[in-house]
Amino acid sequence: MEKILNIGIIGAGRIGKLHAQNIVAYHRNVKIAAISDLFYKNLSEWANGLGIENLTGDYKDILNDPMIDAILICSPTDTHAQISIEAAKAGKHIFCEKPIDMDPDRIKEVLNCVKEAGVVFQVGFNRRFDKNFRGAYESVREGKIGKVHVVKITSRDPEPPTPEYIQVSGGLFMDMTIHDFDMARYLSGSEVIQVYATGDTLVDKSIADLGDIDTAAVVLKFENGAIGIIDNSRKAVYGYDQRIEVFGSEGCITVSNEINSLAVLSDKNGVLSEKPKYFFLERYKESFINEIGEFIDCILHNKKPPVNGVDGLISVLIAQAAKKSLQSGKAETVYL
Amino acid sequence: MEKILNIGIIGAGRIGKLHAQNIVAYHRNVKIAAISDLFYKNLSEWANGLGIENLTGDYKDILNDPMIDAILICSPTDTHAQISIEAAKAGKHIFCEKPIDMDPDRIKEVLNCVKEAGVVFQVGFNRRFDKNFRGAYESVREGKIGKVHVVKITSRDPEPPTPEYIQVSGGLFMDMTIHDFDMARYLSGSEVIQVYATGDTLVDKSIADLGDIDTAAVVLKFENGAIGIIDNSRKAVYGYDQRIEVFGSEGCITVSNEINSLAVLSDKNGVLSEKPKYFFLERYKESFINEIGEFIDCILHNKKPPVNGVDGLISVLIAQAAKKSLQSGKAETVYL
Amino acid sequence: MEKILNIGIIGAGRIGKLHAQNIVAYHRNVKIAAISDLFYKNLSEWANGLGIENLTGDYKDILNDPMIDAILICSPTDTHAQISIEAAKAGKHIFCEKPIDMDPDRIKEVLNCVKEAGVVFQVGFNRRFDKNFRGAYESVREGKIGKVHVVKITSRDPEPPTPEYIQVSGGLFMDMTIHDFDMARYLSGSEVIQVYATGDTLVDKSIADLGDIDTAAVVLKFENGAIGIIDNSRKAVYGYDQRIEVFGSEGCITVSNEINSLAVLSDKNGVLSEKPKYFFLERYKESFINEIGEFIDCILHNKKPPVNGVDGLISVLIAQAAKKSLQSGKAETVYL
Amino acid sequence: MEKILNIGIIGAGRIGKLHAQNIVAYHRNVKIAAISDLFYKNLSEWANGLGIENLTGDYKDILNDPMIDAILICSPTDTHAQISIEAAKAGKHIFCEKPIDMDPDRIKEVLNCVKEAGVVFQVGFNRRFDKNFRGAYESVREGKIGKVHVVKITSRDPEPPTPEYIQVSGGLFMDMTIHDFDMARYLSGSEVIQVYATGDTLVDKSIADLGDIDTAAVVLKFENGAIGIIDNSRKAVYGYDQRIEVFGSEGCITVSNEINSLAVLSDKNGVLSEKPKYFFLERYKESFINEIGEFIDCILHNKKPPVNGVDGLISVLIAQAAKKSLQSGKAETVYL
Repeated sequence: MEKILNIGIIGAGRIGKLHAQNIVAYHRNVKIAAISDLFYKNLSEWANGLGIENLTGDYKDILNDPMIDAILICSPTDTHAQISIEAAKAGKHIFCEKPIDMDPDRIKEVLNCVKEAGVVFQVGFNRRFDKNFRGAYESVREGKIGKVHVVKITSRDPEPPTPEYIQVSGGLFMDMTIHDFDMARYLSGSEVIQVYATGDTLVDKSIADLGDIDTAAVVLKFENGAIGIIDNSRKAVYGYDQRIEVFGSEGCITVSNEINSLAVLSDKNGVLSEKPKYFFLERYKESFINEIGEFIDCILHNKKPPVNGVDGLISVLIAQAAKKSLQSGKAETVYL
Repeated sequence: MEKILNIGIIGAGRIGKLHAQNIVAYHRNVKIAAISDLFYKNLSEWANGLGIENLTGDYKDILNDPMIDAILICSPTDTHAQISIEAAKAGKHIFCEKPIDMDPDRIKEVLNCVKEAGVVFQVGFNRRFDKNFRGAYESVREGKIGKVHVVKITSRDPEPPTPEYIQVSGGLFMDMTIHDFDMARYLSGSEVIQVYATGDTLVDKSIADLGDIDTAAVVLKFENGAIGIIDNSRKAVYGYDQRIEVFGSEGCITVSNEINSLAVLSDKNGVLSEKPKYFFLERYKESFINEIGEFIDCILHNKKPPVNGVDGLISVLIAQAAKKSLQSGKAETVYL
Repeated sequence: MEKILNIGIIGAGRIGKLHAQNIVAYHRNVKIAAISDLFYKNLSEWANGLGIENLTGDYKDILNDPMIDAILICSPTDTHAQISIEAAKAGKHIFCEKPIDMDPDRIKEVLNCVKEAGVVFQVGFNRRFDKNFRGAYESVREGKIGKVHVVKITSRDPEPPTPEYIQVSGGLFMDMTIHDFDMARYLSGSEVIQVYATGDTLVDKSIADLGDIDTAAVVLKFENGAIGIIDNSRKAVYGYDQRIEVFGSEGCITVSNEINSLAVLSDKNGVLSEKPKYFFLERYKESFINEIGEFIDCILHNKKPPVNGVDGLISVLIAQAAKKSLQSGKAETVYL
Repeated sequence: MEKILNIGIIGAGRIGKLHAQNIVAYHRNVKIAAISDLFYKNLSEWANGLGIENLTGDYKDILNDPMIDAILICSPTDTHAQISIEAAKAGKHIFCEKPIDMDPDRIKEVLNCVKEAGVVFQVGFNRRFDKNFRGAYESVREGKIGKVHVVKITSRDPEPPTPEYIQVSGGLFMDMTIHDFDMARYLSGSEVIQVYATGDTLVDKSIADLGDIDTAAVVLKFENGAIGIIDNSRKAVYGYDQRIEVFGSEGCITVSNEINSLAVLSDKNGVLSEKPKYFFLERYKESFINEIGEFIDCILHNKKPPVNGVDGLISVLIAQAAKKSLQSGKAETVYL
């Protein structure tokens, strides 16, 4: 008889709910033992439908439950570090949504606790688990394009977040580009040593009042000499634009946008295909399933997590350097 | 509290198992109450993993179980009609894999029983539930291409079935093209009145010894004047080739092959994309989930099934006419 | 000093003018020595611009001119055979637009005269000279798809010809499908032995009054066992639809439509590419240049023409069999 | 009777010859009256074939010829300014290959002379005349993507030039990226105010010894707020990679690579398309024809040239700022 892993989910907003649903639908040998959320009273019907019985308003109930093996931290960013530290001390394996924290020193504190506790700690860079990007990654690792020279990432949201969200997001680089920083490291197989960033508010001037930008270009230099180029926008009217390109001495790999249906209409106006999938919940649906699958697999089979705490730390360091560069107008060094 | 639908599965070969797994993973409000299979003793471990408790060697146990609301008939083709009739008499809703039978008279018998019993009867033409083809279908229905003039279907398997299978398959038209006949009716929105078919054994001459062909071209004439063109092969080395095209007075809709990863490699040899998905289990994965979802929905909400017994009958009549045409060298009338 | 080839053009309608312009623009070592046309008086300005001095109303002036080495027959179809015979007797090399004649016996007469005269005789199946189709042809010949099993050709015009033209065109198969019959032979590398054809007037019912159809499906059987499938329409609102596919034991080659600009627009409505090139003058522009280039090359370097009189004859025989099949509802034999 | 324009070509290397051939083949109302080249004695046979009679070793012969209306300056870069000035003084219309000079002050001198002389002065930024990029440009101007936010250009050569060429090329930004700077201005419709550039020698370390780089990323800021992103490589093994993207508030336009043949092979290895056209002579063939066509049209019809001297100056100023940024690691201002 195989072991059943008991999982607690801390925070049941959009992403916490998504993980819960995915676990019920796709992952065997796992049980959602409890969910904590400040507004847990509104969750009963939803939880019931999934067969989840224990709801609580206090995440400490989850950490104190000796039956629970692992937790998913899906609460607001400013609680990630504290909960991670407590969870590590309680001996729980941890899956933590990105970013771990916006302060690198605080992240290092978390990583130390995790190390001492010897628990699995995985960070939610879900895009690494997308089949297309993983396909590209594997081709690069197999040498199909020789040495990597340039990594290019286009990442555009279909619409800007709310002003409320922008205020606490840590800014475009910390909130949005952070995924691209991680993807650039993943694809290049090398560490970022320098960042140049520029940007503006071209989508919505009011975002400037919140001290943020909505359009950005970032150039990275990697330890192995490769160059990274990222461009971001908070608003692409045609949907979520998520493309990558890895160019090297022997070839180039590109990944274009996923679409829902391959039906193409030719008529007097031209040849019309579907828009890209609308946003991350659609586009990265499978990657969210896969990342939790690998997290479970790490725990059950004593493996190292595919995206660890150091990955979570480095992406924040790059985001900080990008922010600094945006102000200085110079390429800034990333100190790992 | 919502009703839980109890389902019994008769026949747990490849397709029966697939439906069982899909139900467990994707469909709420449904319970697999029992599975019958001649070799049920070998199924314990698999069934256990899915939380299915009742296994039996006799499908009548399922039909006699008053708790069971609906059944999926996934047993060999020559048992479909008999089980359907018995199930209808037992008041069970029925999902029956295609074909219902190879003899149209026997199918009519089934349909009469079903009608008398007033149960839902859905036939397993899963491709209608593919999101791409459904997208095409909906665009046609919305008038985006005006009046339909031509429907084209390319359907090629990655490799021929075993000689054992070919012997009992009813021949290429009954086994393979039958899906295309149904798709042609679905897309054109009109009935087939005439069929011309030709074919040969170009893949494997030994298939001729079994009285069958492996490569075919079929031309259909529809009641509304439209023309249908189907081409089949039992072996496409590049994988499962499943394309459609609907051409009309105001435009044309095409659906190309699905691929697993959008990663494309450019190197000194050219620009290389992935092959189409390997075979029907990969390509039509979602359609199998969707067809059962709609079957359940029909029962729970008292709707008409999206593919009914008459659809099952007509596709067999067309297959018969195609077979006749192959021998006569003439276009043959389809008598509905 | 290299020889200058003197060419006479008989008939300066759309296609005759096109050849004249192409020769002036693209072909060295060639001079258009004279052009004959019933309405030659209207051609002065156009001819002047191209530096062509001799215009005549009588094609015999061209045949009688001892300086002229070769002629292009671009006059109406019903004059092709007579002029070909006279030209052969006059020792001129001949490029003749398709079809040579609608009567196979008359074509055989022409071929006999040509043979006796020992002149080069090339027929205007320009599509063989399209770089895409030639690329496909060469891949097939190099064995990249193994043995040919199926050849598929889609050929749709952007709009029907005038009623006047339809009346003298010889019908859809003789006028339009004839190109596809030749292409099917070219790509399959085998002779057509049997034809089944069906069709209707779905575009414009008034075409039926002229005894013709506007939509057709044709199935060919080749000597080597391969199957050919052609579909035609007189009206595709999205432009000239010209696609081919050659499927074989080791792979499949497809050619999609050429477009003018690769600029693609993604906006809130979807992802929009250009329509295919409008019609044959745009789509096959280069092929018209190339076919005359190869004709000239044959004469100057004593080579065999890439499309000869027998090719011209066979395509007419297939068209006749198709017409017969349309009436009989049976597959008809092609007697070569 | 229409006027014939007499053109002199100064410098008959690869690009001078190309223009000569294009004029003979494609442009009416134009005569190549003379060609000057230091090695004119080797050109006789080639010139003869094109019907060009006057060859000289001294470009002043061309400037002194009163019959000559216009000249094409296709000689080495370091002679462009001097010849331009002399030609302007001689009242000749001038088409000058890029760059006019590497020294902006010297260019300004040229532009003053041109202005005084009142002659047409067009610079050889041929890519503006590519039908794909022009299609994109026109869609942008028509407002199809709203306000421009980001312009992206990928420009990769199939192989590095010789060390000899690199030494006199002015460096990657002046020789190669200069086309992209012009294209970025063309597509954005705005002036570049700031440049950040980085790069390395990833293709061939020996290029570093010549003081140059072979791989670069450049970020531009435009007056209208838009951001430009350019990436260059001297070696793409899959051929000449020339793509653009213009992203705006209402959509995005992309142009992918042109290929020679649309024949696509599906076999057991995947789905293989052709590589991009090999290099600029193939890829931009039509653009070279078109730019001279528009130059001729400007002279004959008294129009303003589509790419003028100021365009030639600004691209050099941007290239200089890029070079400065490469060294400083900061974004550098472009002073127009």
